[in-house]
Amino acid sequence: MPLPTDDVVTALTEALPGRVESEATNIAEFTVDRSGHESAGLPLIAVYPESIEEVQTVCRIASETNTPIVTRGAGTGLAGGAVAGPGEIVLSLMRMNRILKISQDNRLAVVQPGILNGALNAALQEHGMWWAPDPASKDISTVGGNVAMNAGGLLCAKYGVTREAVLALKVVLGDGRLIEVGHRTVKGVTGYDLCALMIGSEGTLGVIVECTLKLQPLVVGETVTLGAYFERLEDAAAGAAAITRDGLVPAIMELVDLRTLEALDDFFGESISRGSDAYLLVQCDGPDSHATAARVAELLTMPGSIVETTTDPVESARLVNIRRNAFPALEAKGTLLIEDIAVPRDQTVAAFSAIREIEAKYDVIIATSCHAGDGNLHPTFVFQGEEVPVHIWEAASEVFALALKLGGTLSGEHGIGLLKRRWLKDELGQDQFDLQRQIKAVFDPQGLLNPGKVF
Amino acid sequence: MPLPTDDVVTALTEALPGRVESEATNIAEFTVDRSGHESAGLPLIAVYPESIEEVQTVCRIASETNTPIVTRGAGTGLAGGAVAGPGEIVLSLMRMNRILKISQDNRLAVVQPGILNGALNAALQEHGMWWAPDPASKDISTVGGNVAMNAGGLLCAKYGVTREAVLALKVVLGDGRLIEVGHRTVKGVTGYDLCALMIGSEGTLGVIVECTLKLQPLVVGETVTLGAYFERLEDAAAGAAAITRDGLVPAIMELVDLRTLEALDDFFGESISRGSDAYLLVQCDGPDSHATAARVAELLTMPGSIVETTTDPVESARLVNIRRNAFPALEAKGTLLIEDIAVPRDQTVAAFSAIREIEAKYDVIIATSCHAGDGNLHPTFVFQGEEVPVHIWEAASEVFALALKLGGTLSGEHGIGLLKRRWLKDELGQDQFDLQRQIKAVFDPQGLLNPGKVF
Ligand SMILES: Cc1cc2nc3c(=O)[nH]c(=O)nc-3n(C[C@H](O)[C@H](O)[C@H](O)COP(=O)(O)OP(=O)(O)OC[C@H]3O[C@@H](n4cnc5c(N)ncnc54)[C@H](O)[C@@H]3O)c2cc1C
Ligand SMILES: Cc1cc2nc3c(=O)[nH]c(=O)nc-3n(C[C@H](O)[C@H](O)[C@H](O)COP(=O)(O)OP(=O)(O)OC[C@H]3O[C@@H](n4cnc5c(N)ncnc54)[C@H](O)[C@@H]3O)c2cc1C
Repeated sequence: MPLPTDDVVTALTEALPGRVESEATNIAEFTVDRSGHESAGLPLIAVYPESIEEVQTVCRIASETNTPIVTRGAGTGLAGGAVAGPGEIVLSLMRMNRILKISQDNRLAVVQPGILNGALNAALQEHGMWWAPDPASKDISTVGGNVAMNAGGLLCAKYGVTREAVLALKVVLGDGRLIEVGHRTVKGVTGYDLCALMIGSEGTLGVIVECTLKLQPLVVGETVTLGAYFERLEDAAAGAAAITRDGLVPAIMELVDLRTLEALDDFFGESISRGSDAYLLVQCDGPDSHATAARVAELLTMPGSIVETTTDPVESARLVNIRRNAFPALEAKGTLLIEDIAVPRDQTVAAFSAIREIEAKYDVIIATSCHAGDGNLHPTFVFQGEEVPVHIWEAASEVFALALKLGGTLSGEHGIGLLKRRWLKDELGQDQFDLQRQIKAVFDPQGLLNPGKVF
Repeated sequence: MPLPTDDVVTALTEALPGRVESEATNIAEFTVDRSGHESAGLPLIAVYPESIEEVQTVCRIASETNTPIVTRGAGTGLAGGAVAGPGEIVLSLMRMNRILKISQDNRLAVVQPGILNGALNAALQEHGMWWAPDPASKDISTVGGNVAMNAGGLLCAKYGVTREAVLALKVVLGDGRLIEVGHRTVKGVTGYDLCALMIGSEGTLGVIVECTLKLQPLVVGETVTLGAYFERLEDAAAGAAAITRDGLVPAIMELVDLRTLEALDDFFGESISRGSDAYLLVQCDGPDSHATAARVAELLTMPGSIVETTTDPVESARLVNIRRNAFPALEAKGTLLIEDIAVPRDQTVAAFSAIREIEAKYDVIIATSCHAGDGNLHPTFVFQGEEVPVHIWEAASEVFALALKLGGTLSGEHGIGLLKRRWLKDELGQDQFDLQRQIKAVFDPQGLLNPGKVF
């Protein structure tokens, strides 16, 4: 027999004194994340557990009262996954932010989910190691959120996405039971890989309460940065393709289009773009950085291109910042809908030109940057006002269809959340969609974890 | 209404002319794999489909008649997973062995599951790429079998296990439906990662009928091989640990114990072991191979050790072959039960010494080699006769308990199959065990795929 709403609040408040918050001003932030999506109103209550047992208590009370739970890290998600509304409990992991163990011998760290990615990496540095996932949001997003989203970043074509950097997880199920999935060992093949299943599950299968992370030794060698300006985007894309075909593996390879360059020129008040049509940032690290960079420069040098190569930290930062400021520069122009398709690498040029056509057809502005090492494009719609206009959703919808047509996917790294639910079945097909929903039901038979998200 | 057995044979024979085999002499091989386990008798029939549609037909007929299917690659498994018995259909993928696509631009290959790993890698070489999973059985095992087992190998501490090397799979479900899981793109986060779930599922969730594999560019630089002989195994293990702690990542790091060295001396009829207690093989590749090797040599040089370093191919092969011949040398001594635990790297020495105690307690011979880069040990029981004697199972059982006690796992790479079923729940715990069985039921509600295996 579900309790009325008031009783849930009372039960949580009594069970977890000092851990709850229900003042409107203090929980209003939970109605949004960084996607621009806003829920219909304030959630019931926010709970800030400080231990696994407290998370279990929250889940048990939610389960007994049939109350939905929205798990939340730092709220930097771009898919609406952490957005909570009326009748929902917000379960914030932000107070569970400790490093429990760092082992050089085992090249692993055990952390609570609420630690920020950047804070963890700062602590790891003195141990000569790092955790590879590097979303642009690393200083403001949590490790738990990175795991829940399977976050990627600039370095992941070389160093892997989050899925490759997690050994084991402790997970609290919707009814409060605790399971441990994965292995502390580097290898392990006992039963199904539920650890991989949890990674990228967007808070719909369980609450990640402890993460055993696979670390890498710090990269040796001098980092070499290249910035290349092209008269034609096609040449920039062809250059990136030639780098891959040649067997080179740069640490970073990022393509920025004309629309983005125009915004950067305005943002900095100077010609960052040097009047070019596209900019390609390449960074080479590791013991063969110089040899790789020399070959990269060779492949990018062509009529209509200017290539700069540097090992100077200041000059290098300038070249990198062109890419890093892409979104801030666009934000100065209006509200953004940041999309996130991925296509097979050899379809990158085709994707860019089809996006230009969609831009013209709907008379919208789409600025696109691209992780060229892995075919992950961020077509970014720039518009005025708060709400995404209907014609922009229509244009976005064509972008998604395009990704699928080119053999790609709806989301390279930002996830489905609320925002891409309606396209998910197009990608998965009915049979796989049904299987996924049945898996959800296995983990969360009451359907209390992040209801309405993903599916 | 299940049909009687004869009708299944008739239905398959009529639907798939030229693809079935039911002569006793031709299907007897399917009652065993390389684990030493033998089924209770001949299976019903073996089917050799040549296309995805034909696999679907087999599954549809099996589903309609409620007949179990045992999917089979090359039958080199060490866990009894491909062993078939009375009333079961053997579904062999050996005729689906073509390479469908190799793309340098996308660094991927699309292959049918029955191709041998070694044959694929031979074909990839001329395209300047390779597929990293390298089980010692690579020349005799299939890519589909590698994926179904999440195979590892000597190189996987540096280059990853099979899970890291698969982008997408086509899978036929027990009822004949075809799904496509994963992404052809390098990144993709739409819905749950069913591709990872299929990897290592040992034929219990579906039939893998097409694999899109993530490739790597061929490694550049000269390979340097080191062979180090130690008076004390503890020193060899400490040396390996020091290499990891120092942030070095050798391509291969393999530890061989005294029992194995004794067998090698007898096998070759000369003192391979040089009277040492342990042998450590280290191979360094890539652009920094020489620098890494020099540091490795430094770390391994200590009182009681002899370290040889070489780039000469013949001398290098000699050092590698000491490790490669470990199992053949042991096989010359008797029947083997090859175990496969993994422990956190810093527990390697503890594992070795506990194994010595178990050896003494049960008065058995346990020869152990170890992938020292990832803490994966192969304690190998040597005995006379065909059947594994009861006291050896008891000793093995203590080895498994030891692995769990040290924070490790029952199986680093060989899987559960039939042989380790009874210990699986000890590792997973009841809650996760139940979840895994429910997932099995989602994919295979009739329970027809590899029944009795894993769970
Ligand atoms: C400026 C900016 C740049 C970005 N750049 C990138 C990028 O380069 N690559 C990239 O991949 N993403 C990027 N993102 C998106 C976002 O930062 C990532 O998705 C990040 O992983 C979210 O972490 P979070 O802690 O903010 O999670 P939240 O936004 O709080 O939550 C995200 C989702 O994960 C779930 N969740 C969070 N914590 C847990 C947990 N412990 N257990 C279970 N579920 C949980 C939530 O329910 C929600 O569905 C960017 C965002 C911004 C604002
Ligand atoms: C000498 C020797 C050395 C070995 N070395 C290693 C090693 O270093 N590392 C390692 O990991 N393993 C090793 N193995 C074990 C074995 O080779 C691997 O498990 C291999 O991946 C099995 O491949 P296979 O084609 O022989 O599969 P099989 O033995 O035919 O099948 C293995 C399992 O996979 C399932 N299966 C096979 N194909 C499919 C498919 N297409 N779809 C769904 N399910 C399928 C079967 O049902 C069965 O459960 C070794 C074995 C031997 C004999």
